[in-house]
Amino acid sequence: MPRIVVDVMLKPEILDPQGKAIVGALPRLGFTAFSAVRQGKRFELTVDGEVTDEILAQAREAAETMLSNPVIEDVVNVEVVADQP
Amino acid sequence: MPRIVVDVMLKPEILDPQGKAIVGALPRLGFTAFSAVRQGKRFELTVDGEVTDEILAQAREAAETMLSNPVIEDVVNVEVVADQP
Repeated sequence: MPRIVVDVMLKPEILDPQGKAIVGALPRLGFTAFSAVRQGKRFELTVDGEVTDEILAQAREAAETMLSNPVIEDVVNVEVVADQP
Repeated sequence: MPRIVVDVMLKPEILDPQGKAIVGALPRLGFTAFSAVRQGKRFELTVDGEVTDEILAQAREAAETMLSNPVIEDVVNVEVVADQP
């Protein structure tokens, strides 16, 4: 069944303590290539049947109103992904 | 600066109570098109300069060892995204 992926990230101006913790810990494990880390959320919405324009519009509205907090978060991506085994 | 996006999801056989809560709440707001929801994590790793194969390999290793818990989670995606304003 197809899925719609919704990616939500904190707005750039909002402090991300989880990301800060990760970027501080990476060099201690030998990962020195990264200067910043931000942590966000990824949702996979399963659709029964075909993804119509109406369903995609529903997903976008759900992303903006329920899956993210528009005060502090941005919906950075809403896309359909094909079925995977 | 380029970023490497890492997507981590719970393994399919692991119960996802957050996803279950969301899929139960969606119809109450009029979103009736979705039969299942899974919630995962999205990380954005900022790289200073160019993303070389070595840096991408570092990102993959960090994704498997630090950004995810291999017992319950899968790294579903590691990709380079171009700089965005």
